[in-house]
Amino acid sequence: MSGTTIHKGKNCNFVQVPIPVNKAVRQESKQTLYFHKPVHIVTANAVVGNKEAEGPLKRYFRRIKEDIKLGEKNFERAEILMFDEAVRASLNEARPLVGNAELLISGDLLNQMTTSSYVARNLDLPHIGVYSACSTYTEALSLGATLIDAGHFTSVACATVSHFATAERQFRYPLEYGCQRPPYAQWTVTAAGSCVLSAKGEGPVIRSATLGKVIDFGQNDISNMGAAMAPAAMDTMCTLFRETDLSPKDFDLILTGDLGKLGSDILRNLMREQGYELGQQYKDCGCLIYSVDQNCYQGGSGAGCSASVMNEFVLPRIHDGTYKRVAYLATGALMSTQSCYQGETIPCISHGIVIEGENV
Amino acid sequence: MSGTTIHKGKNCNFVQVPIPVNKAVRQESKQTLYFHKPVHIVTANAVVGNKEAEGPLKRYFRRIKEDIKLGEKNFERAEILMFDEAVRASLNEARPLVGNAELLISGDLLNQMTTSSYVARNLDLPHIGVYSACSTYTEALSLGATLIDAGHFTSVACATVSHFATAERQFRYPLEYGCQRPPYAQWTVTAAGSCVLSAKGEGPVIRSATLGKVIDFGQNDISNMGAAMAPAAMDTMCTLFRETDLSPKDFDLILTGDLGKLGSDILRNLMREQGYELGQQYKDCGCLIYSVDQNCYQGGSGAGCSASVMNEFVLPRIHDGTYKRVAYLATGALMSTQSCYQGETIPCISHGIVIEGENV
Repeated sequence: MSGTTIHKGKNCNFVQVPIPVNKAVRQESKQTLYFHKPVHIVTANAVVGNKEAEGPLKRYFRRIKEDIKLGEKNFERAEILMFDEAVRASLNEARPLVGNAELLISGDLLNQMTTSSYVARNLDLPHIGVYSACSTYTEALSLGATLIDAGHFTSVACATVSHFATAERQFRYPLEYGCQRPPYAQWTVTAAGSCVLSAKGEGPVIRSATLGKVIDFGQNDISNMGAAMAPAAMDTMCTLFRETDLSPKDFDLILTGDLGKLGSDILRNLMREQGYELGQQYKDCGCLIYSVDQNCYQGGSGAGCSASVMNEFVLPRIHDGTYKRVAYLATGALMSTQSCYQGETIPCISHGIVIEGENV
Repeated sequence: MSGTTIHKGKNCNFVQVPIPVNKAVRQESKQTLYFHKPVHIVTANAVVGNKEAEGPLKRYFRRIKEDIKLGEKNFERAEILMFDEAVRASLNEARPLVGNAELLISGDLLNQMTTSSYVARNLDLPHIGVYSACSTYTEALSLGATLIDAGHFTSVACATVSHFATAERQFRYPLEYGCQRPPYAQWTVTAAGSCVLSAKGEGPVIRSATLGKVIDFGQNDISNMGAAMAPAAMDTMCTLFRETDLSPKDFDLILTGDLGKLGSDILRNLMREQGYELGQQYKDCGCLIYSVDQNCYQGGSGAGCSASVMNEFVLPRIHDGTYKRVAYLATGALMSTQSCYQGETIPCISHGIVIEGENV
């Protein structure tokens, strides 16, 4: 593998693989969509597992599952029930405020997104399945806001989920194997997050969405997601700042999804090289959700990580005026076990949105 | 399993499982989006395998791969190359007509949609990953048309792919096992399809999109996709007719994606029960693509099935005026091997679009 080394560290040493880009395709494309009608996040909630409920954000989570198997015969079934509870909670909470949601946009990490489909089949709502791994929630929010802004729907539910045990079984090893985790690993968050967007009602407003490109800097360690995803976060974040003509200091909070400690350190360095100093207002959901003494190594990951932190911690802070403008960039690693076995590197993506308080 | 038997046949005997629908959520929702600006399909193409090129549509396919491994070390790599060729071909063909496409919307059948991601990482375009199994192409077209109609983009590429060998390995058994196929099985089509939609230029116009619901009638045989998907096609087709106020006779062609012989027979029966007689103008891409003597049992399936038939056979017939108005409903089975092993039934979805000639 040859290329430019972009980061060297004790647990991370990766190079940019020269990718055979067809130069004829390269272009300066516009990636940011602006919404002209106010698209409110009228209700949002999360269902989380016991580990998440013992972390630094414990007092913010309202729906907690002490047994992450929920008494079911397998973890996949438990994930479906958690997701179902989160989606129904947001639909039920939104109904008195803005009426029935008319569409569900969702995705999850399991093969063929079965969790989403098994929940959607019981809801009698049209369904759009979206996938960008742990960036699924911002992808769903971007499309939901687009459909509302364009006048096709008044209210749309957006949701995602991840579960520690199902993700470990699928992407790494079943828990029963008792495998050791490397020090740069992250911990997949057991959480489902769902919200209802609406042209009616009140609540934080989605102002814009910056759709990410698939970025691959040549990382191929399936345990080191933070290092793989940081370049994708950098790419979308630079585009967001450039196209919206906003700089880091224009945001009260710049939030990435699940880079973890290592990944967010890399992102800070990468952004510094691009001329952006991410100050104290930069935080990562993967770092926020677990404390150091919870043995989660670099922090949380998974589609439910940023969805639960955004829904239960950040959105209420936008609502009460603590944060006036937030950039929220979830980050997804797009590999499969098959592709990793076949020696492929890990492509990643980050979709970002700008959320503002109602009176900004 | 108890419920109402909806179809009995030699190779198919399934019942409607009573699903615990939360009645409070049920509603009469609107599923059809209408596009007010003309969204043209300015260019469309497919890359197909040798088996597809030997079928009844052989004279319509322009890009054919005699070796479906493309000389690569594995089939997954070959699928990436086929997809890459199809997407680049549509981008390159569209460029002189409408300029550069500004976004890629795509998905595929492999776990975590790696084929899409590995192609997107080389294209320097923002990417939206969508998944609804073999209905992915109509989902992508629906969202592409929405984004163009809303004015966010001028030109958007939509694409999907499937590959016989990678699908068999992932969903059933690797080819090397030499397993026998049941008589109601279908054959996953090896094909990649891609098109460019644009507000500029010329070509068939997407008038509306009807987003499907996830429907599960209790079928749990992973080899019998047609029977599983037919109820989803029925649900969306009835909604499309009802909401657009059009009936089967208003269409020159009503096209489903990949129900195959058995599945399309079931669909005809289900639609008859709903009061719609699908006449001679009803066809299924899975039936069109292979001839009986090709040993494909019930016909073709896979996301690339309807994408290739639509792109290379149907769209040119709309262009030359043979068909003036076409209803195109791709159909997707949303199970994973994991969910089937765990005893779950197969939820399905169908997203439908209406395409018209430019001068209708």
